[in-house]
Amino acid sequence: MEQELIESFKKIVGAAHAITDQASIAPYLIEERGLFHGKTPLLLRPSSTAEVSSIMRLASQTCTPIVPQGGNTGLVGGQQPDENGCGVLLSMERLNKIRCLNLEGNFAVVEAGVILQNLQKKVNESGRFFPLSLASEGSCQIGGNLSSNAGGTAVLAYGNMRELCLGLEVVLPDGRILDDLRFVKKDNSGYDLKNLFIGAEGTLGIITAAVLKLFPKPKGKAVSLVGLCSPAKALEFLSFAQCHGGAMLTGFELMGKLSLQMALDYKMCERSPLEHKHEWYVLINISSLQSDEEALSVLSVILEESLKNAVIEEAVVAQSLKQQDFFWQLRESISSAQKLAGGSIKHDIAVPLASIPDFIAEAARIVEDIAPGARVVCFGHMGDGNLHYNITQPIGVDTAAFLQLWSQMNHRIHSLVMHYQGAFSAEHGIGQLKREELRAFKSPVALDMMQGIKKMLDPLGIMNPRKIL
Amino acid sequence: MEQELIESFKKIVGAAHAITDQASIAPYLIEERGLFHGKTPLLLRPSSTAEVSSIMRLASQTCTPIVPQGGNTGLVGGQQPDENGCGVLLSMERLNKIRCLNLEGNFAVVEAGVILQNLQKKVNESGRFFPLSLASEGSCQIGGNLSSNAGGTAVLAYGNMRELCLGLEVVLPDGRILDDLRFVKKDNSGYDLKNLFIGAEGTLGIITAAVLKLFPKPKGKAVSLVGLCSPAKALEFLSFAQCHGGAMLTGFELMGKLSLQMALDYKMCERSPLEHKHEWYVLINISSLQSDEEALSVLSVILEESLKNAVIEEAVVAQSLKQQDFFWQLRESISSAQKLAGGSIKHDIAVPLASIPDFIAEAARIVEDIAPGARVVCFGHMGDGNLHYNITQPIGVDTAAFLQLWSQMNHRIHSLVMHYQGAFSAEHGIGQLKREELRAFKSPVALDMMQGIKKMLDPLGIMNPRKIL
Repeated sequence: MEQELIESFKKIVGAAHAITDQASIAPYLIEERGLFHGKTPLLLRPSSTAEVSSIMRLASQTCTPIVPQGGNTGLVGGQQPDENGCGVLLSMERLNKIRCLNLEGNFAVVEAGVILQNLQKKVNESGRFFPLSLASEGSCQIGGNLSSNAGGTAVLAYGNMRELCLGLEVVLPDGRILDDLRFVKKDNSGYDLKNLFIGAEGTLGIITAAVLKLFPKPKGKAVSLVGLCSPAKALEFLSFAQCHGGAMLTGFELMGKLSLQMALDYKMCERSPLEHKHEWYVLINISSLQSDEEALSVLSVILEESLKNAVIEEAVVAQSLKQQDFFWQLRESISSAQKLAGGSIKHDIAVPLASIPDFIAEAARIVEDIAPGARVVCFGHMGDGNLHYNITQPIGVDTAAFLQLWSQMNHRIHSLVMHYQGAFSAEHGIGQLKREELRAFKSPVALDMMQGIKKMLDPLGIMNPRKIL
Repeated sequence: MEQELIESFKKIVGAAHAITDQASIAPYLIEERGLFHGKTPLLLRPSSTAEVSSIMRLASQTCTPIVPQGGNTGLVGGQQPDENGCGVLLSMERLNKIRCLNLEGNFAVVEAGVILQNLQKKVNESGRFFPLSLASEGSCQIGGNLSSNAGGTAVLAYGNMRELCLGLEVVLPDGRILDDLRFVKKDNSGYDLKNLFIGAEGTLGIITAAVLKLFPKPKGKAVSLVGLCSPAKALEFLSFAQCHGGAMLTGFELMGKLSLQMALDYKMCERSPLEHKHEWYVLINISSLQSDEEALSVLSVILEESLKNAVIEEAVVAQSLKQQDFFWQLRESISSAQKLAGGSIKHDIAVPLASIPDFIAEAARIVEDIAPGARVVCFGHMGDGNLHYNITQPIGVDTAAFLQLWSQMNHRIHSLVMHYQGAFSAEHGIGQLKREELRAFKSPVALDMMQGIKKMLDPLGIMNPRKIL
């Protein structure tokens, strides 16, 4: 990259925020899974929408690729520049203002660089609730949550990021600012533009701010860890919990026995909160706008009926806030726990609820066929049909050799998912990791429309190139 | 239109369903408000997605404009051909199959021509619930509901049509079929295509089928008609009802005193269900997954607290299913009642909740300024900030002369709405009626993006031309 161009970018954000020193850039280039090793000559850290706009104007004049990055917690490499090193990395971390909290209207206007946990806290203090909740909430940013249409554990009751967003402010690839911030739930004035950018992983423009929905704050919670014998029983349990609990059912996470065991080991627990061992577990969360007592009473009916009808085998209800948190920590630590067990080939899939038992049975046969002895760590947001179907290497084999099976395994598992008309990327997106899968599984008409949209908004191809498409 | 072309269209759908007889076509050209008087040489009634695809292929080869029509209940002329008479009208009424009801997965696959009420009934019989509810539900069709992103009374708890839809099947203007039917809630595999077509009023393609979300069926309901003194009090009442009732609050409709009086007159009721007269009324609906008793108990707390705190002045709880229906009929009959009172200039607006009281006060001054003596009939879905701010002619003046004020009135009221960062078309869309308003109030960047999308998908401009843009 020519020095003159670097100087022009510097002028926009100030010398302190246009970084060329590779040691300072290095942390931005490390990603969670260690799969991608991008390079960049320049890191920009703008502090305002106007600066982002100037950056994109200059980028489009000079045909410079720009890679936007939020909290750098993405799992498919969407936030990483590629290895050819010609893209400028644009960190959104300094656009971190909560512009307004409107409590009567139940919305917040939030800049892209706000860390999710900071927003959760601020909203909570104001007596409202923002439901998005992810394992990475302490570092992920709202802009990244939007660009990846983040899901997590609260989708069941509140929807994913797409459904939590009323409007956006976006800097387009040519530097123009689209002000589509909307403060009302209903607005049918023309085509829906915001949903093009949500889930587009920064390939169509840079989200700089958003209007997000707020909700009444639940006053009570009840949590239980449940043991049961099969995914079919878990499905029956879910169905009853939904019909009885309705919107009070705010979490329903499935965990295979190995998932829970790994989490318990990771947390250094000598024994499980449940008395017996089971093939499958469910973490169920009930929220109440009234009180802990109401939440507990609804949970109790669900558990008692399900025990009576032999839908579940055993249940333990958390007896304190601390124990509730502990149950959730078990669930949230599965991914970290899995790292200690060696290499893992991962899937982030969704199938229609009714197909989950069949999918799990058939997928196990595929795994055994491709990698005999590999350990299935299956867990996830069962209420959404979304499973993290991860496969950890057999004990004692060479990690690198096992990971060589990644594409083959992915392709077989994803083919099964598509057979059930599911999704081969339910919540993590496409990024760099699943571009081939997109080409393999998406219909040609859909791919063609996507390419048309990309070309219309980013004719120069400078906006996070070689991601998704 | 040349006879040869008509014959070619006939071959696709069969002679019985390619209609040129103007007397048979006439009912399709009459619309609710009597504002639009379109013409067409040909009405086509295809029965399958494949036939729609063939029609569009022929239309694009011959550059023939196609105007898709659902139940013909739209209020902005989006479903009507224009007066130049060169567009073919395409009725979706024969694509009326419910392809599947999946109860475990809580979704239905429904063709575009299915009448909303038929779907509601079928789903209800199966033990589930489809929440979309509109005054026109007996004749409007799912395809139209999607194309207009229909709202109605249940948006408060369940969202609008956009949020009720998981995926679409669409015939593109060139005849290709986009199969974006999805059976899972989470799918982050590439750009969101379905939301482009939802709310696009048939200008980007023809929706032929959709996957719709189903919900657990509420087992209980409680309904009350409430009198209160001002919109500010109604806002306070809403806020309390939301925090206490949460997802159980499934209806919150505001009605000005004139709205209720007109509805009572229309229903030939000698007296109101309430003992006293009030300036404003709210119809509040509480649903329960458990029982009528639970719904009533939640409603009672909301009413008692609000009476105690002087938020509301009086409340009457419906004592039977019949009375519940009657309260809702009052609300639903306001539009019909208004017709009997002469000409009306209508607005379908949304403003942020906190701005509703100020909006109502200021809008009244605008009305009095433009049309002294005109009667404000203000009612709507207050929980969504969405009001039908309608203005009925002063008693005794000439209707046509009053209706001459339509544009002027619209423009002043909509300017006020935009001052509050609201929506000048909250749920009815743009169609033919609000094209000028769109040009006046939408940002140039948004308009430019919309034009780009239109051009990309419909380069010949044959898909429902001169609607929206």
